Amino acid sequence: MEPLFELGLDLPPRGSGDRLKSLHRQLREAIRSGRLAAGTRLPATRTLARLLGVSRNTALAAYDLLLSEGYLQARHGSGTFVATLRTAAQPSPRHAPAADRLLHPLWQQMAGTLHAPRPADWRFDFRVGLPDVRPFPFDVWRRLNSRARREAARRPAEYGAPQGDASLRAAIAAHVSFARAVACTADDVIVTAGAQQAFDLLARVLVQPGRSTVAFEEPGYPPARAAFTAAGANAVGVPVDAEGLMVQALPADARVVMVTPSHQFPLGVTLSARRRAALLDHARRRDAVVIEDDYDGEFRFGGRPLDALRTLDADGRVFYVGTFSKSLFPGLRLGFVVAPAWARPALRAARQCADWHSSLPTQRALAAFIAEGHLARHVRRMRRLYAERREAVLQALQRHAEGRVTTVGEPAGLHLSLALHGRLRAESIAQRAAAEGIGVEPLARYAHASPLNGLVLGYGLADPRQIEAGIRQLSQWLR
Amino acid sequence: MEPLFELGLDLPPRGSGDRLKSLHRQLREAIRSGRLAAGTRLPATRTLARLLGVSRNTALAAYDLLLSEGYLQARHGSGTFVATLRTAAQPSPRHAPAADRLLHPLWQQMAGTLHAPRPADWRFDFRVGLPDVRPFPFDVWRRLNSRARREAARRPAEYGAPQGDASLRAAIAAHVSFARAVACTADDVIVTAGAQQAFDLLARVLVQPGRSTVAFEEPGYPPARAAFTAAGANAVGVPVDAEGLMVQALPADARVVMVTPSHQFPLGVTLSARRRAALLDHARRRDAVVIEDDYDGEFRFGGRPLDALRTLDADGRVFYVGTFSKSLFPGLRLGFVVAPAWARPALRAARQCADWHSSLPTQRALAAFIAEGHLARHVRRMRRLYAERREAVLQALQRHAEGRVTTVGEPAGLHLSLALHGRLRAESIAQRAAAEGIGVEPLARYAHASPLNGLVLGYGLADPRQIEAGIRQLSQWLR
Repeated sequence: MEPLFELGLDLPPRGSGDRLKSLHRQLREAIRSGRLAAGTRLPATRTLARLLGVSRNTALAAYDLLLSEGYLQARHGSGTFVATLRTAAQPSPRHAPAADRLLHPLWQQMAGTLHAPRPADWRFDFRVGLPDVRPFPFDVWRRLNSRARREAARRPAEYGAPQGDASLRAAIAAHVSFARAVACTADDVIVTAGAQQAFDLLARVLVQPGRSTVAFEEPGYPPARAAFTAAGANAVGVPVDAEGLMVQALPADARVVMVTPSHQFPLGVTLSARRRAALLDHARRRDAVVIEDDYDGEFRFGGRPLDALRTLDADGRVFYVGTFSKSLFPGLRLGFVVAPAWARPALRAARQCADWHSSLPTQRALAAFIAEGHLARHVRRMRRLYAERREAVLQALQRHAEGRVTTVGEPAGLHLSLALHGRLRAESIAQRAAAEGIGVEPLARYAHASPLNGLVLGYGLADPRQIEAGIRQLSQWLR
Repeated sequence: MEPLFELGLDLPPRGSGDRLKSLHRQLREAIRSGRLAAGTRLPATRTLARLLGVSRNTALAAYDLLLSEGYLQARHGSGTFVATLRTAAQPSPRHAPAADRLLHPLWQQMAGTLHAPRPADWRFDFRVGLPDVRPFPFDVWRRLNSRARREAARRPAEYGAPQGDASLRAAIAAHVSFARAVACTADDVIVTAGAQQAFDLLARVLVQPGRSTVAFEEPGYPPARAAFTAAGANAVGVPVDAEGLMVQALPADARVVMVTPSHQFPLGVTLSARRRAALLDHARRRDAVVIEDDYDGEFRFGGRPLDALRTLDADGRVFYVGTFSKSLFPGLRLGFVVAPAWARPALRAARQCADWHSSLPTQRALAAFIAEGHLARHVRRMRRLYAERREAVLQALQRHAEGRVTTVGEPAGLHLSLALHGRLRAESIAQRAAAEGIGVEPLARYAHASPLNGLVLGYGLADPRQIEAGIRQLSQWLR
């Protein structure tokens, strides 16, 4: 008979009476030999029975025998697992590999510094960079996803284009043309798995390991810097003041300049018009390129925006990076680069090498979501909500901490920052706040050197009814 | 009033009578200045009207004016687009960047060689590496996706873990333990965006640019090799014979060995038991690691399988790479690595740098699909179908091309290969076949040097009722 699993569960024919014995013996052997590793969850008896063509009672009886013999363990509510056998021959790594010799040293270092998941579940949540997804029209999103998956079911299997699905690229081009005044067409757009992949692909094609200097805002966004460091860039921090990146302080040999012009991360200031002009001039004179990270530019609560760098750029030196992590939700993992023509073939090749392309049905669902106007509508709605929350934060700060902190940043995005006065220390305030269930981050988390003594306050997740109480409590440590 | 678009469409208040004039003037100015680029698709009038709070007639009238003035173009059935203006100041790249100086030379080369999309839409489709998705239970898949998206709607926004969702890792561990006899637990599994990302992440953490030699099967799978070349590896091809990779021909300094033991790509042979032992012995003696690419190992049509390299490995030197592109569908973009503990922190860091993680609802939908037994059931069903198709191909070859070709490969997977005899030339046969609507690839496409004179025949997509006719027609060029 056909082996049902490669584990080798070949059972005698039905009616021979040996099926339970055989199943029991074979599972036991698989556990003893280590082919079924300790901790493996076994299928439910119902599933096993169906797959093997045995009765459920036979599957139950086999599990019961193995449980009583100690080969399996039942964990209440979560299933049946292979037990750790004391007598089992533990695979002894006698010839264990020398990780230090086998791993790229860079990634050994990175492994230590990256991926510190931030605790969630705060009483008052002022973490930065997270949008409120409760008002998101999930019903519409589900419907568009179902439609895309229904359409996918009617087509033969195919790999997609590394640059992204044509319908999504067209929708993104129309969206950023209208919503961000970034003139572009579908040809200019490369779909990425969130902004992080955009940074990673740009780092790979723009950095020549050990030879390229890349300038970052200081403070700035560490994961973007990490992508360039991983590609072998010489990363240099450039300070930020009230007008944004201090262009005059850029190192002359910076081949790439990374910048958040519409809402500096994390300070929240805007790159001034003259700095924008100076930055493009610098790029032209030094034969450099600029990466414009517009991570939350859709949320601006007042005044006319300054032109995007990409809009001002006549030479093809600006890469505009956008994401749907803030305007939709982070778990979506879709973003894009508007890239000059000379770099697109290399970016396409890098995307293909990295992972080919993003999920096709998800790309098509997002294309429909944008084209049917749902994105613009959702952004409009959230802009109102975030503006109210920002206002509530500012008013509560005025009431409870006036004169003791200075708020920094333009009326935009999902966060603002606070510069602390006198002898207040941001790190210890954040720690004390955490102990009381208030999630707030010190600015130092986003700096490599000479950190500003300050806090960054996100209001994306903050429940508007709780902002007043949260800020009041936070303010007791600001005395 | 609030600016509705950053394009700057600020309209006078309702009832002032100037709204049409103002809308028309502002759109024209945006097109003239290049802020709305030529080729941009405009929103439908209904959408524009809703977003701006004007009547649909106003939006229609504004578009009509711009159409009549030549600023817009209507394309039948696809919408209204910004026209190319002859008089518009074309952004002149006076200071166009020197791509040669700004791009990593490697990616300039890669850009020329990668991304050659294969034509689809064959009368007889024998392309390799594509599964038949028609029998896939898309209704179940849609339901599980909807459920995952409904659950996501109830949680606050959050980034996921770079290693992958815990429920999916547990489901994958159980699946490969049972279906592939690869002993592992959820801790060992790292979720990736398809096998390609697994190769890319492994290349990044295992290759020290310019110093690491990596061995590939010759012929082999070019995209995996490309990922390592991109990371700076010195790629070396090692020949394959009837027993699979010729382990005795491995270069002594190969730090990484990439191999497809269960069904060699593209020849279809299986790595023999003694070669498996020799390969692990080589790795141990030379302090090397092995990447076991099990791209279609679920589809085996006879005999007992040989132990996976990962199962035989007591030292932690084998990385087992799996994908759902063949067992589900390629557009899904989910795969995984079962990795030894010493390499996991680096792989997690690399994944975080690359793109953080895969879409959370999709990961959870796949976890449920596996845990509820749908994957195992679908694989069983497809195994029968593919076995029948393989048999049909073999019989048709016997009938129409006996003695003129030798079929190569074990009864497994979605393809087999043909070694050609005498003066037949694979390239010219594939060309002639293509001209008649038969999609079939020469083996040389998968070789870097000394290609075998042969064809690779995929039967994943081949309509079983057409196999006989397709092979008969193909056989006329095998005389």
